[in-house]
Amino acid sequence: DIVAELVGAQEHVTCGDFSDKTVLITAGPTREALDPVRYITNHSSGKMGYAIAQAAQRAGARVILVSGPTQLATPAGVERIDVTSAQQMLETVMAHVKSCDIFIATAAVADYRASHISQNKIKKKDDELTLTFVKNPDILKEVACLPTPPFTVGFAAESQNVEHYARQKLINKKLDIIAANDISREGLGFNSDQNALHVIWADGDKRLEPQNKKHLACALLTVINDRYNNKKTS
Amino acid sequence: DIVAELVGAQEHVTCGDFSDKTVLITAGPTREALDPVRYITNHSSGKMGYAIAQAAQRAGARVILVSGPTQLATPAGVERIDVTSAQQMLETVMAHVKSCDIFIATAAVADYRASHISQNKIKKKDDELTLTFVKNPDILKEVACLPTPPFTVGFAAESQNVEHYARQKLINKKLDIIAANDISREGLGFNSDQNALHVIWADGDKRLEPQNKKHLACALLTVINDRYNNKKTS
Repeated sequence: DIVAELVGAQEHVTCGDFSDKTVLITAGPTREALDPVRYITNHSSGKMGYAIAQAAQRAGARVILVSGPTQLATPAGVERIDVTSAQQMLETVMAHVKSCDIFIATAAVADYRASHISQNKIKKKDDELTLTFVKNPDILKEVACLPTPPFTVGFAAESQNVEHYARQKLINKKLDIIAANDISREGLGFNSDQNALHVIWADGDKRLEPQNKKHLACALLTVINDRYNNKKTS
Repeated sequence: DIVAELVGAQEHVTCGDFSDKTVLITAGPTREALDPVRYITNHSSGKMGYAIAQAAQRAGARVILVSGPTQLATPAGVERIDVTSAQQMLETVMAHVKSCDIFIATAAVADYRASHISQNKIKKKDDELTLTFVKNPDILKEVACLPTPPFTVGFAAESQNVEHYARQKLINKKLDIIAANDISREGLGFNSDQNALHVIWADGDKRLEPQNKKHLACALLTVINDRYNNKKTS
């Protein structure tokens, strides 16, 4: 009917036009093994990345979703590749980044992995256990530092000095946009269906108020579309 | 109909008669926070514990299931209490153990927790990160060492010297039964629907061959029922 068509058209307009664009998205947590049984991970549910993947696909993009372990269903029409560790996520992203126009890194990649993965289960012996971790590859930075990088969007989940850390990350990693969220705000972000984002770029910013992640994904894509077109024509 | 009744009766007989018994079961992994975002956990799905809970409830028991984070539905008629950390699991078990006849500890409790939980997200600064962990409470041992303990069944997930470690655990923790599984065996145990168990007690043992966890739960309950009656009459 006409109403549905109008709503559909409006949604399409709201999220921007992504036809002829390939969007590469990372989502979910990564898992870093300590031994065959134990691992370090984080509270990322993957919902934000999956919502962006779905919205981008509906807005006409070819979407490749590189996903850490989540419980979520693949959005219709999205090409999903499952990975576990940060190292695997890096390799998969690097294998697909050259064909993409926009890279959106929503995954909560583990910053560190165990310096040594034990082949056998670590026995509980001592009262204290000390583990050493080494830095994982910085996927976002590696993509943004390519000779001809795609338009690159990062995320910053922070619990304090949110805007300060986000701007640092934008500059240090040479990103086009960073979307910051304050994980100390009750009921938003990790594992929630709601989130708010402070979207920041070199010479501007926009606050996206608390809302359902599906609507938020669309609002974020609108900003990305604007900035992407602005960069191309400048 | 008659066939269903016979099948029902046969299942009932196979798993033992648990009417008038209260069975307390722990299941799933625990999560030990490092900061507001990161945690250590393990690959336990909770399937084995949930299968035992369901089989015990069907065999007539009152079942209290203390569960770490899982994606599983609560079996019908089972009283489920959700917990996150080992410390919470201990407190919940201790609050219910006095009213129970049998305690079955299937949960993969994290052996260690961070010696300090950071209030804010740990920043990625140094190339190396060293974290110190302290031993978690040993829930199984604390239950088995009570003045009047319930009949206590432990689990041992091992990747090497399975029987040796399991017998050590049986003796050290003063358990009535230990059910050992070899996590190095392909396609069994963690996250799988299949498992095999080597059930060991002071003066005997029984090998339960690889099978669906639901059938295995019933076979294990049969052994528990036998040993429980043997202990009461000896």
